[in-house]
Amino acid sequence: MNTQPHDHIVKSYDEERQRLIGEILRMGEMAAAQLEAALDVVDRRDDKAAARIIANDEAIDALEHVVSQDVMKLALRGPMARDLREILAALRISADIERIGDYAANVAKRSTALNLSPPLPLTRGLNAIGQLAVTQIRDVLQAYRDNDAEAAQRVRAKDAEIDTLYTGLFRELLTYMMEDARAITPCTHLLFMAKNIERIGDHATNIAENIWFLVHGDDALPPREKRDGTNTATTP
Amino acid sequence: MNTQPHDHIVKSYDEERQRLIGEILRMGEMAAAQLEAALDVVDRRDDKAAARIIANDEAIDALEHVVSQDVMKLALRGPMARDLREILAALRISADIERIGDYAANVAKRSTALNLSPPLPLTRGLNAIGQLAVTQIRDVLQAYRDNDAEAAQRVRAKDAEIDTLYTGLFRELLTYMMEDARAITPCTHLLFMAKNIERIGDHATNIAENIWFLVHGDDALPPREKRDGTNTATTP
Repeated sequence: MNTQPHDHIVKSYDEERQRLIGEILRMGEMAAAQLEAALDVVDRRDDKAAARIIANDEAIDALEHVVSQDVMKLALRGPMARDLREILAALRISADIERIGDYAANVAKRSTALNLSPPLPLTRGLNAIGQLAVTQIRDVLQAYRDNDAEAAQRVRAKDAEIDTLYTGLFRELLTYMMEDARAITPCTHLLFMAKNIERIGDHATNIAENIWFLVHGDDALPPREKRDGTNTATTP
Repeated sequence: MNTQPHDHIVKSYDEERQRLIGEILRMGEMAAAQLEAALDVVDRRDDKAAARIIANDEAIDALEHVVSQDVMKLALRGPMARDLREILAALRISADIERIGDYAANVAKRSTALNLSPPLPLTRGLNAIGQLAVTQIRDVLQAYRDNDAEAAQRVRAKDAEIDTLYTGLFRELLTYMMEDARAITPCTHLLFMAKNIERIGDHATNIAENIWFLVHGDDALPPREKRDGTNTATTP
């Protein structure tokens, strides 16, 4: 019945490849769930749940390590050019997911600092950007699973929405700080949390660009607008 | 006289490898010089020079692209396990250098926003952290060139100094903002600039860890302390 006597030991290149993609998708879903949990924790002001999210980040880091190992195993099989592009994309995408996980853990970490001050209404603005980022992560992972460069391109285009929301929130926070000195410390944490989420959006965009590279090779990407204006923002 | 007739077309594996390392070192020195220039521009309040630094970042991005291409060429030669580790480290280190370049450009970008407000004394604190980060980048590049895991380990240990300075500056900036509402906007830019530099320190640490991996494989790294306490900082 067993036509390939060693298939339980030596897996085919394609099986290993599928496993690698599966690991990356799992890693990505973990990062999306971490961000979702972190946003929830900000709303509920739950320090214990925040601590769990921070601890969970290690599992994502461990998976990135596994991906690197598997990439090395695949590369040792002396792959062709197209396979190598896939391997390179896998490495980069897993690194981006690892960073997304870091940023999500950071949002959770700062939420505990936020809980030392009275609740601020502006956490709702943060949640809106955060939910958009969660959707971006899930959409780009689906594009990766489906090898769909057009879907990836849509994720990339949508990043401008996160940037616009971020810029608005940034300015709102500044006025808030100017009106009430007691709000400065919590608002500073919110500024960094918003920045973390904006960076998560950038990493989703990086993943989208790697999917493009995977499908089209080094063909030039269509141009994209970038709307984060806070680097040069002045007092509104 | 020419003993290897095709050496001008087909380079040896070792020659290609040396070229790759040379590209990464060049890229790293560019990033260190960018950070140095950005710190200088903050002091001199020179918007034109800031614009040049921002434009220069493209050259670093272009070099990362070249490194990726060269890594793929090397991987196609069907390398051995130790070579693969070198290739993997090269990819990761060049990605870290690319991020350092981004952060340096960001410091330059925010300096132009800072110049819209009157000068702040706290830019000196920023410069001190920045100079430390420049040294860290140069030291870790030298460790990479020399394949010196012990030197890399020293860079990694020294990152705690940057974190300590960053935490101090962060708290200082907060009190400043509370004393004078007009300082809030420029201090917010300084907060992000300080954070950019703190992140540069983290990337130098990542590079150090990849040098360790390069030399020792997956042997566990010695533990390291992490002193950035601002994630949970409260009003001093």
